Amino acid sequence: MGNKVIITIAPTGNVPTKEMNPHLPVTPQEIADQIYECWKEGASVAHIHARDKEGKPTSDVNVYREILERLAEKKDCDIITQLSTGGRAGNSYLERGQMICLKPEMASLATGSSNFPTKANLNDPETIAYLAGQMRAYGVKPEIEVFDTAMLANAMQLVKQGVIDWPLQINLVLGVPGSQPASFQQLFFLYQNLPQGATWTVSAIGKDHVPLSTMALALGGNVRVGLEDNIYYSKGVLATNVSLVRRIKNIALAMGKEIATPEEARQILGLEILHK
Amino acid sequence: MGNKVIITIAPTGNVPTKEMNPHLPVTPQEIADQIYECWKEGASVAHIHARDKEGKPTSDVNVYREILERLAEKKDCDIITQLSTGGRAGNSYLERGQMICLKPEMASLATGSSNFPTKANLNDPETIAYLAGQMRAYGVKPEIEVFDTAMLANAMQLVKQGVIDWPLQINLVLGVPGSQPASFQQLFFLYQNLPQGATWTVSAIGKDHVPLSTMALALGGNVRVGLEDNIYYSKGVLATNVSLVRRIKNIALAMGKEIATPEEARQILGLEILHK
Repeated sequence: MGNKVIITIAPTGNVPTKEMNPHLPVTPQEIADQIYECWKEGASVAHIHARDKEGKPTSDVNVYREILERLAEKKDCDIITQLSTGGRAGNSYLERGQMICLKPEMASLATGSSNFPTKANLNDPETIAYLAGQMRAYGVKPEIEVFDTAMLANAMQLVKQGVIDWPLQINLVLGVPGSQPASFQQLFFLYQNLPQGATWTVSAIGKDHVPLSTMALALGGNVRVGLEDNIYYSKGVLATNVSLVRRIKNIALAMGKEIATPEEARQILGLEILHK
Repeated sequence: MGNKVIITIAPTGNVPTKEMNPHLPVTPQEIADQIYECWKEGASVAHIHARDKEGKPTSDVNVYREILERLAEKKDCDIITQLSTGGRAGNSYLERGQMICLKPEMASLATGSSNFPTKANLNDPETIAYLAGQMRAYGVKPEIEVFDTAMLANAMQLVKQGVIDWPLQINLVLGVPGSQPASFQQLFFLYQNLPQGATWTVSAIGKDHVPLSTMALALGGNVRVGLEDNIYYSKGVLATNVSLVRRIKNIALAMGKEIATPEEARQILGLEILHK
């Protein structure tokens, strides 16, 4: 599977609003519809955030359930679902982990703290242990969200302690203001420090997201795209989720790579063991 | 001043106890006495943490005041005082910043969040802005404490926003569990990403602290030592603050460097402008 690229779509996130980009999917139906379109375009993983009726970030299990139900109505769509447990939507770890019981195939797990622009990206050891424990209890594979370099070492520490299982799937998040920068040096340093045998993805935010994502492909990594990370397709041009998936797919194909189907992605990520 | 090395002594910290190392200074008198001995040995900056009557970390302004008073009784000692505003001793930013009004020449300012072994190293944007504002109001130069790479970029962002003044003094803290690792790669990466013109210091924790500190000297940096960072001098041998200062001084001298006096350190760090 060495030539297969996993494209993850992150359609919504916590920060964008419809005012910032009218193409942003916010309701469960909109989110499911756009994930479906992105799946048809080549995405094999959906990284999902939920919004409440006012469009604000929420960890509410009922909203997540509705998103998964709307998505299940797309009968032919076998995309891997990955639910966010991120700290922007919930305050306590109980709040943040409430959707894990829905048994998505994956969920996000940040293995350390950093900052967002106006608050901390707070993931203290107790929170990490709780969320990891819930994921294990429900057979959910964590995706390790790395907002700065310590989170790589912290994740390996959790493997050693037996809290999370090897092999890891790691997402390098570059360019969240207050966390590690979206620079080529940063990406290369993280790449050099990846635990051998881990699968990995890059989410690059900001003006260099295309070359950074391409560098990830060149280095053998996978790529996450979507309005969560970038509301612009290029300078001054608003993106759509489908347009972002299509572009990264075209770059990968032009490089001679193939796009992993969800079934292939399950093999690469080791999800089949968990769910059979 | 290119050949002058500033040695910072961090005698106490938050974590060590007298049970772990009986040489640890805990009371204001003990802390002042050991700083004085380290100053005689070549230290020009004292990075000071306070403990309460039970030996627990505290941000209490009265304890800090007493430490500074005991130190002022050493009439010939002109060491630069740098008080800690770290998050292990206080919970709110009001608590954490209460000693800044004592007008030490410097105070620590972590410019982002990371983790400690059992809690978050929480420095959200509001906390940073408050502490930086207090330092500016009292003419106190911040030392930027970098526990992971984002904190470098965050510090430069604060300079751009006019919240803190250029040039920066940066301390690279390596090896706090939950924060960036004490590795040669990590130190070199941070070094490559230092803002040009900043002064910088390395605090290395753990088994490689001697080679990492020596690497810092080789790269032109300054070094912090002390029981705060390492309770062992070498494997199985308990350290004293004076022994740690003496060793790094001897390494620097053997390299042909000179040890900065406090007056020289004030010039290098740009403290004279603030205090004249």
